[in-house]
Amino acid sequence: MSAIRPLFVVAGIGNGSGTGASSARLFAKLGYSVALISRGPEHLNKLASEINQNRGEAVPFPVPDYAPASIRAAFSSIRARFPTTNYPLRVALFNAGYGVWKPFLEITEEEVRQSLDVNVLAAFTFSREVLLEFTKNDLEQPSEGGKGGSRKKGTLIFTGATAAIRGNTTTSAFAAGKFGLRALSQSLAKEFGKQNIHVAHSIIDGNILTDRARGHHNDPAWEANADTRLDPDSIAKAYLSLVEQDSSAWAWEVDLRPAHEKW
Amino acid sequence: MSAIRPLFVVAGIGNGSGTGASSARLFAKLGYSVALISRGPEHLNKLASEINQNRGEAVPFPVPDYAPASIRAAFSSIRARFPTTNYPLRVALFNAGYGVWKPFLEITEEEVRQSLDVNVLAAFTFSREVLLEFTKNDLEQPSEGGKGGSRKKGTLIFTGATAAIRGNTTTSAFAAGKFGLRALSQSLAKEFGKQNIHVAHSIIDGNILTDRARGHHNDPAWEANADTRLDPDSIAKAYLSLVEQDSSAWAWEVDLRPAHEKW
Amino acid sequence: MSAIRPLFVVAGIGNGSGTGASSARLFAKLGYSVALISRGPEHLNKLASEINQNRGEAVPFPVPDYAPASIRAAFSSIRARFPTTNYPLRVALFNAGYGVWKPFLEITEEEVRQSLDVNVLAAFTFSREVLLEFTKNDLEQPSEGGKGGSRKKGTLIFTGATAAIRGNTTTSAFAAGKFGLRALSQSLAKEFGKQNIHVAHSIIDGNILTDRARGHHNDPAWEANADTRLDPDSIAKAYLSLVEQDSSAWAWEVDLRPAHEKW
Amino acid sequence: MSAIRPLFVVAGIGNGSGTGASSARLFAKLGYSVALISRGPEHLNKLASEINQNRGEAVPFPVPDYAPASIRAAFSSIRARFPTTNYPLRVALFNAGYGVWKPFLEITEEEVRQSLDVNVLAAFTFSREVLLEFTKNDLEQPSEGGKGGSRKKGTLIFTGATAAIRGNTTTSAFAAGKFGLRALSQSLAKEFGKQNIHVAHSIIDGNILTDRARGHHNDPAWEANADTRLDPDSIAKAYLSLVEQDSSAWAWEVDLRPAHEKW
Repeated sequence: MSAIRPLFVVAGIGNGSGTGASSARLFAKLGYSVALISRGPEHLNKLASEINQNRGEAVPFPVPDYAPASIRAAFSSIRARFPTTNYPLRVALFNAGYGVWKPFLEITEEEVRQSLDVNVLAAFTFSREVLLEFTKNDLEQPSEGGKGGSRKKGTLIFTGATAAIRGNTTTSAFAAGKFGLRALSQSLAKEFGKQNIHVAHSIIDGNILTDRARGHHNDPAWEANADTRLDPDSIAKAYLSLVEQDSSAWAWEVDLRPAHEKW
Repeated sequence: MSAIRPLFVVAGIGNGSGTGASSARLFAKLGYSVALISRGPEHLNKLASEINQNRGEAVPFPVPDYAPASIRAAFSSIRARFPTTNYPLRVALFNAGYGVWKPFLEITEEEVRQSLDVNVLAAFTFSREVLLEFTKNDLEQPSEGGKGGSRKKGTLIFTGATAAIRGNTTTSAFAAGKFGLRALSQSLAKEFGKQNIHVAHSIIDGNILTDRARGHHNDPAWEANADTRLDPDSIAKAYLSLVEQDSSAWAWEVDLRPAHEKW
Repeated sequence: MSAIRPLFVVAGIGNGSGTGASSARLFAKLGYSVALISRGPEHLNKLASEINQNRGEAVPFPVPDYAPASIRAAFSSIRARFPTTNYPLRVALFNAGYGVWKPFLEITEEEVRQSLDVNVLAAFTFSREVLLEFTKNDLEQPSEGGKGGSRKKGTLIFTGATAAIRGNTTTSAFAAGKFGLRALSQSLAKEFGKQNIHVAHSIIDGNILTDRARGHHNDPAWEANADTRLDPDSIAKAYLSLVEQDSSAWAWEVDLRPAHEKW
Repeated sequence: MSAIRPLFVVAGIGNGSGTGASSARLFAKLGYSVALISRGPEHLNKLASEINQNRGEAVPFPVPDYAPASIRAAFSSIRARFPTTNYPLRVALFNAGYGVWKPFLEITEEEVRQSLDVNVLAAFTFSREVLLEFTKNDLEQPSEGGKGGSRKKGTLIFTGATAAIRGNTTTSAFAAGKFGLRALSQSLAKEFGKQNIHVAHSIIDGNILTDRARGHHNDPAWEANADTRLDPDSIAKAYLSLVEQDSSAWAWEVDLRPAHEKW
C-alpha cells in the first residue's frame, strides 16, 4: 500500500527563479509532491531535478502554451503520474502571466489577445481542473484534541499584481488581464467558500528579485537591498500562510510589497 | 461648402430599448450625427429610421459580431459615409457587452472567450479606432468671453456594471470581462487625459428598464416604479453630463443606480 | 401669499473663491434662495452681497466654529429667516473641511481632533439637520407629459478629496477625517435612498483654483492653464448635474480632476 | 544582567475572549512579554493571571477610558514596569473599538464622538507612543547564514472590520470611525515603511466567536460550526504571520472571514 502525499500543482515557473519556483521548492520541502506546469522544458527540468536532488518529489509537465487544451492535457498527464487516490490535490497556484507595457496605440491586437488568453482564459481552465478535484476532496481534519486543522478541501491561489487594482498609462492590456484574473478569484472565493475551498489572490506590488530582474537592473546594490525588491521565497512563505489558514478565518486577498516601496 | 456636424458613434444598441439607443436618440436631438454599430440589422434599421423621422441623422452600421475586423470595417464604412472633415468624431460610447450568469463549473470555455472577446477585446479595438481620431481633433474652444467650452478633443465612455467592481457567485466570466473593461478605461483615462481626451466609465448598478427586462419581469408595477429600475434615458443624460464636463474638472467614473436599490 | 422658492444650504465657503461659493452663485442663479454657513463673517457678507446684487437671494449665517451647537444654531436662524413652508430645503452641500499635511509625529492631538471635528462630526450634525427636513419634503414631481422631474425629496452632497480614498505619507489626520466623511456619505446614501433622498460624495482629485491657491502658486501660467487645476465653477456644475439626476439613475460618487492631473 | 525579551502591547481585550486576548496568549507563548491595556480591570487581571499561570509574562495596565491622556499614562506605566533596554517593543496591536449600529437619526452626538474618539483618536495616540519607540529600535537581524530575519523595527497592527471598507444603513457612526482608522493605517504604512516599520490593517469580515457573541447567538450549533464564525485564535495566527513577514514582502492589508460567510 502506497503512502498518501498531498499534491501541489503550480502553473508558471518562468526560468525557475521567481514566485512559482520558490513556491514549488517550499511545498516540496513540506512534503507535497509537486507538479510543475510551464513553458520552457529546460527550466522546468532543471527545477524538477533540483527539487528531486533535495529529497523532494517534483515532475515537470511542459506545455507548448497556456491554451485550454494544453492545460487540460497537462492535468491528464499529472493524474496519470500522480493518481488521485494517493496524491490528493491540496494546493494549486496559478502563477502564469503575460505582461506588456506599452502606450496604448502601440499595443497590437495579438498582444491584447495574449494578455486575455494567458492572464484570464488560462486561469479559468486551470481553475476548472483544480476545482473539479477540490470539490471531491475530504476536508482536512483538525488534529486530535485541538483546534488545529484547516477544515479545507483545498487552497487555490492566484498571483496578481499592482495592475490588478490600478490601470496606468502603459498598462491597458496587462491591467485588463490582471483585473480579469482578480474578478475570477473573487467570484470563485465567494462561490466555493461555502464548500470549504479557499481561493485567494495576492497583489504583488513591486519588483520581484528574479534572474530577469537581476539582469535588467544589473545592480548588485539593488539585489542586496532586501527592502526594495520582493524576495520570491518571502512571497512563497506568504502563500504558505494562506494555505495554513483554517476555515474560520481565511483571507481572499493580501497585498505584498517591499518595505521601501513607494505606493 | 457643407456644414460641420459633430459625430457620435455608439457600439451596442441591443434591440433599441436600452442605454445605447437612448444615448443615440439624445445626441441626435442635440445635433450630433449618429453612427450606430450593432448586431441585429433589424433593430438597427428601426432605431435609425426612428431617429431620422425625428429630424435627427442616424446611419446603421451592422456588424456580424464584435470581432476586431468587424469593428474596423464598421469604422471604415462610417468614415466613407461621414468624412472626418465634415463630421469630426466627438463622442464615442462603447455599450456592447456579453453577459453570462452561471455557476462556475457550468460555464463553458466558449462563454469565457465570448465574455473576453466582447467585453474586453472589442473595447480595445473600438477604443483604438476612436482614439486615433480623437488625437487628431482640435480642442473644443471656450465660447467667447467666458469660461465655457470643454477644451476637449473628445469623450469616450464605457458602460460598466456592478460586475466591474465586484465578482460574485455566478459572475466569474462576466465579471472577468467587466473588470477588464474597467481596467482599460482607467488606463486610457490616465494616458489620454494629458491630450485633453476624456475617458469615462459608468458602473450601472441595477436593472435597466429595457424591453428584455420588461418581458423578464412581466410586472407593470415594476415598470411603473421609476425608483427601482434604471431608465435608459436617465443613463443617457448622465452620459451627456460627462460629455459636457470641461477639462478642468472631469470624472473618470460614476456609479448609477435606482433610488431604492439595495447595495 | 408668498411664492415658493427652493432653498440651498451650504456649509463652508472659505474666502468666497472656492467650491462652496461657486455652488452658491450657481444655485442662486437658478432661483434657489441661498443660506451661507461659514466662519469668517467678512467673506460671508461679501459673497452674500455679490449674489444679492446679481438678483439672487443669499443670506449669511456666520458660525464661530463647526461645533454641533453652532451648526444647529445656524439652522435655527436659517429657519427663522426662511420658513419651511415657503422655502423647502432641496439641496444641501457640506463643503467645510480642515486640512493638515504633516509627518505623523509632528501632528498634534489638537490637529487630529480638529480634523475629526470639522471633517466628520460637523458633517454628522449638518446631515442630521438636513435629513430631518428632507424626510418631510414632498417628492419633486415629474413635469407634465414627460419623464422629467427628479422624484426626489432632496439632494445632500459632500465634498471629498483624494485623501478620502487614499492615505499617504503626510495625510494621516486629514485622510482619517475624509475617509470618515466618505463612510458617512455612503451609509446615508444607502439608508435614505429608499426615501428618495439622494446623497452623493465627490472626490476632488487635484488642486482647486482658489484665491489661496493663486497666492500659493503665484504663477499666472498655472492659473491660466485650465487643464491643470480644478475650476470651482466646473465643480459646481458637476454638483448641479447630480442634483438634476432623477431617482431612476443617480450617483453616489463621482471623481473630478483636471485633464492633465497625474493620478 | 537581565535577559532581553521582546514586548507585545495590545489595546483592547474586551472580556478576554476575543482577538486581543487570543493575540496576547499567542505572543506570550512565543516568548514576548505582554502589556495589556484595556478598560475593565477584572477581565484584564483575569487574562494576565491566566497567561502568567501558563508560564507567560503578562501585566495588566487598566485605563478608565481611551482618552489620549489615559493611553499615554498607560505607556508610561508600561515603561516603568518594562524598561526599554530589556524589553524592546516589537509588536503592537490596536484592537480597541466602539461599535454602534443604529438608524442615522437615532444616533446621538455623543455616540458619534465616542466612535471617533475610540476608533480614531485613540488609535492616533496609541500609534504615536508605539512609533516613537519603533523608530529607535534596531532592525531584527537575519539569522546566520540564511535569508531569515524580518529586517524590521517593529510591527503595528490595527483590527478593522467590514465597516472599514463599506458604509451601510445602520453603520454611519461606526463606519466613519473604522474608515478613519483604516486611513490612519495606510498613511502610517506608507510613511514608516521606509524606516522598516511594518504597519498592517485587518478587515475582520464576519462575527467573531467571543463570549458576547456566544451569549447573543445562544446557539451551540453556531458555536460548533467553525466555518461560520471567526475563531479569535485564528485571527491571532493571521496576525502572527504578518509579524513574521520580512521587509522584502509584507502586507498592508488582509481580509479575514469564515469560509461560509456571504460577502
